[in-house]
Amino acid sequence: MNFKKYQKNPVINFPDRQWPNKEINEAPIWCSVDLRDGNQALIEPMVVEEKIEFFNLLVKLGFKEIEVGFPSASQIEFEFLRQLVDRKLIPDDVTVQVLVQCREHLLKRTFEALEGIPRAIVHIYNSVSVLQRDVVFNMNKEEIKKIAIKGTKLVKEYAKDFPGEIILEYSPESFTGTEIDYALEVCNAVVDTWGPTPENKMIINLPSTVEMNTPNVYADQIEWINRNIKNRDSIIISVHPHNDRGTGIAAAELALLAGADRVEGTLFGNGERTGNVDILTIAYNMFSQGIDPKLDLTNVNEIIEVYERLTKMKVHERHPYAGKLVFTAFSGSHQDAINKGMRALRERQSKIWAVPYLPIDPSDIGRSYEPIVRINSQSGKGGVAFIMETYFGYKLPKGMHKEFADIIQPISEKQGEVTPDQIMEEFKKNYIDKKEPLHFRRCKFEDISDNDDGCTHAIIYYTNHGVEKFFEAVGNGPIDAVQKGLQKELNINVKILDYNEHALSGGAGAKAAAYIHMLDLSSKKATFGVGVSSNITRASIRAIFSALNRLGVSE
Amino acid sequence: MNFKKYQKNPVINFPDRQWPNKEINEAPIWCSVDLRDGNQALIEPMVVEEKIEFFNLLVKLGFKEIEVGFPSASQIEFEFLRQLVDRKLIPDDVTVQVLVQCREHLLKRTFEALEGIPRAIVHIYNSVSVLQRDVVFNMNKEEIKKIAIKGTKLVKEYAKDFPGEIILEYSPESFTGTEIDYALEVCNAVVDTWGPTPENKMIINLPSTVEMNTPNVYADQIEWINRNIKNRDSIIISVHPHNDRGTGIAAAELALLAGADRVEGTLFGNGERTGNVDILTIAYNMFSQGIDPKLDLTNVNEIIEVYERLTKMKVHERHPYAGKLVFTAFSGSHQDAINKGMRALRERQSKIWAVPYLPIDPSDIGRSYEPIVRINSQSGKGGVAFIMETYFGYKLPKGMHKEFADIIQPISEKQGEVTPDQIMEEFKKNYIDKKEPLHFRRCKFEDISDNDDGCTHAIIYYTNHGVEKFFEAVGNGPIDAVQKGLQKELNINVKILDYNEHALSGGAGAKAAAYIHMLDLSSKKATFGVGVSSNITRASIRAIFSALNRLGVSE
Repeated sequence: MNFKKYQKNPVINFPDRQWPNKEINEAPIWCSVDLRDGNQALIEPMVVEEKIEFFNLLVKLGFKEIEVGFPSASQIEFEFLRQLVDRKLIPDDVTVQVLVQCREHLLKRTFEALEGIPRAIVHIYNSVSVLQRDVVFNMNKEEIKKIAIKGTKLVKEYAKDFPGEIILEYSPESFTGTEIDYALEVCNAVVDTWGPTPENKMIINLPSTVEMNTPNVYADQIEWINRNIKNRDSIIISVHPHNDRGTGIAAAELALLAGADRVEGTLFGNGERTGNVDILTIAYNMFSQGIDPKLDLTNVNEIIEVYERLTKMKVHERHPYAGKLVFTAFSGSHQDAINKGMRALRERQSKIWAVPYLPIDPSDIGRSYEPIVRINSQSGKGGVAFIMETYFGYKLPKGMHKEFADIIQPISEKQGEVTPDQIMEEFKKNYIDKKEPLHFRRCKFEDISDNDDGCTHAIIYYTNHGVEKFFEAVGNGPIDAVQKGLQKELNINVKILDYNEHALSGGAGAKAAAYIHMLDLSSKKATFGVGVSSNITRASIRAIFSALNRLGVSE
Repeated sequence: MNFKKYQKNPVINFPDRQWPNKEINEAPIWCSVDLRDGNQALIEPMVVEEKIEFFNLLVKLGFKEIEVGFPSASQIEFEFLRQLVDRKLIPDDVTVQVLVQCREHLLKRTFEALEGIPRAIVHIYNSVSVLQRDVVFNMNKEEIKKIAIKGTKLVKEYAKDFPGEIILEYSPESFTGTEIDYALEVCNAVVDTWGPTPENKMIINLPSTVEMNTPNVYADQIEWINRNIKNRDSIIISVHPHNDRGTGIAAAELALLAGADRVEGTLFGNGERTGNVDILTIAYNMFSQGIDPKLDLTNVNEIIEVYERLTKMKVHERHPYAGKLVFTAFSGSHQDAINKGMRALRERQSKIWAVPYLPIDPSDIGRSYEPIVRINSQSGKGGVAFIMETYFGYKLPKGMHKEFADIIQPISEKQGEVTPDQIMEEFKKNYIDKKEPLHFRRCKFEDISDNDDGCTHAIIYYTNHGVEKFFEAVGNGPIDAVQKGLQKELNINVKILDYNEHALSGGAGAKAAAYIHMLDLSSKKATFGVGVSSNITRASIRAIFSALNRLGVSE
């Protein structure tokens, strides 16, 4: 590849950086730019009614600052803002933001669009990077700085006559491609011209207009400005990352470590080219670490539905937190670990979530456990046992996991994914309904003495290859009696290695499932048998018959 | 949201870290895990023949290390490896890697699968994290470490009797959730047991099995191990990031700063849940900074085609470098800047790529310029002019950009995106084919003297509302003569403000396009007219007629 056509983008020399020692402890101010940066990058931009629905979603999610467009550049965006104002759709605690270039006729039109609004952020920008000064504007540093100063003065003039409150936001566009000291110089000039105070702050927004380097470099740039800008206590430092290198989320997070107060981004990272930074993922990342995200993101499916319908974009299947496949686990060892982690959580009644491979509880964001485990040829025994327990309530004894998984494995190798219903069907076919040639019909038990360890007398009615039979036997309990009786009846030599039984669900009418692990001493083969009944004794006898049929001792 | 259910994952205290002062200067060893981690996370895992096609793609892209599966766990993966060996599909310079747990019967089967191979990486792993030790294994630190040591010993024994070369890879699985000193202790124990040398290195792979923190924390962990592990010169430090927080690429890049030698990942970040790290994006990021990515990624469309067909997964439209929309620009100012940047590149014949909003030249990776600019209601004048120039070769004079964009704007506001063909159609309708009521037919020019600045005598044949007419006129050139003649003929008062003309394409048979900017002194209206002809004089006269018709002077 012709890599020599490209050059490294410069980094700043800043060994005194402090951000790598910091941790994120609280949510920043969120500003959604879905209706501007996001919308302008759609093949089909939204129409006014769609924008209103999207705006209402953002308000519902808890965004307090929302950029609503570039009203001086497009009639649709002008009308949209008028609709928001005239139909009183902007809640008192929400501030809308409008983008505009530093030019008089555009500013005039922008203030016309804002008429009647109690409070707005007017967001001006001009490009300051080395490359854009050279090839786009053909202006020197002083001339470019003057654009910013002139724009600030114009906003100040219009704001003076405007009845509502105007908050200035200034973006040195293409900031990451700009000499850092010059970027600071321009920002300071704007701050001087506007004159913010700690009570009336202004916003300095530092965009990664095109992602140009690893995200630590962006963090260095943000911390450097953060530590060197004038009147820091009168300024809100905002970041606006894009995602050209696939590291927009990291850039935003490291910028927060570096002291940024505010993040501009979009739902699911929609936006020009590779998109703006995805605010939802940053917020969910905070949530997963016990930090209040200051957004109400409890129903991600609803957000996806509105987003996909209005933008006609798709949320990818592996998108963090929201993708269809992100709460699945195909690998057997993962499934086994999830299974054990969930059990530990239940048993310990822990209030803190800690399950391997599941950073958060899917139900906290409106996702269900259901798709967590899918069974394919890679999933192994843990997954199959997990399905049996979570879908159907069967707690298979540990020793049985492999035996049953070996029944499912060839099916998944042949057909790909196996559904829970198919797994249950195989479980029935191979265990519960294994009733031939030996079919248990009914029983009668009578204790011979009233000692606790006394003997039980049993009469068992069954069919063998359809022929009705019965036997009598004595043992220290039903299982022992039935086993002994059958050994004699069928002239076989089997040993019961293990027995488990549990209720299948709560309540008085609950059924029980019994598992018998049986060894055939002649063939040295061992297997499990399963019986189900609302009578625990009948369930266990059925399990014995199931095991015998599986061993084929009476074939 | 119930954020109190979650806790912060611990970070390490490491103020002496050096990685933030570093830059990436060379590509790491790449190891594809597409056929294992990637494949196991597919709803429909690949069958053997599909795996072979995918393997061949990886080889073609230049991967020298490829994990081919977990042959002891699945019959398909066993067969796949046998096919690779038996059909001699593994090039001499490619090493395949097989995953296996630290258990005797699985290792035995793994070595059976490797029979006849000259060289392989045997990748063993066991989970070492606090959470997994507790809820999954119920073992203490010493017991968990013993699993790793025992596994290493077993591989050593099998390797001794194996005719080919065996390279050991050890992964302390769930590394990022492990006490860093304990993770080091386990790795050192494995190193001691295996005994690597600078000539026969082993691989220590440090997975971010689940992404648990901001990517700087992973970099800290990697640098700490890198600086503290035994026999560093005998060890290849490998990283294996996942993407649960959407920062997998950043984690890999910062880990490279921290001293990692090798990256395990997949094409387009396929893999369990949110996926493994996307190797292609990391490689393209390096490429975009002038670093040889050591992979041949010149045809991203071909990679996408094979990937989507075999995995049945989609590459998202905003995926870095590969997504359908990432080389588009909808915003007018972006389009304008791209236009200017590309022109500067051409004019300066620069060998170094530098275009605003385009981190790389799309043609370097098999993408075309064609979809770079789409016209919607947001795109403004720059975009329309760009389309006219790049698609159709018309270099509209700067003053004409806005006039023509104002024709396109209402169409895009009404219908959404406007195609280049629609733009050309409007250009023809409004300019080139504006031939009523005044329609130029033919002309005759004769120079009156042979001085350079002498006068030209013109006879112009035209129709006005279909009526054939002609006039004679004299001027200092064709344009002047025609203008003067028409003023008199039609009794109008117009002024030509500007004139531009250029060849539409190279070669002798090329046509020319002429642009006349004309002011009607009566109405004070100004407009452009356009004429096209293989004769430059006829083109300019057509442009005059086009302008007159647009001004409506003869209506």
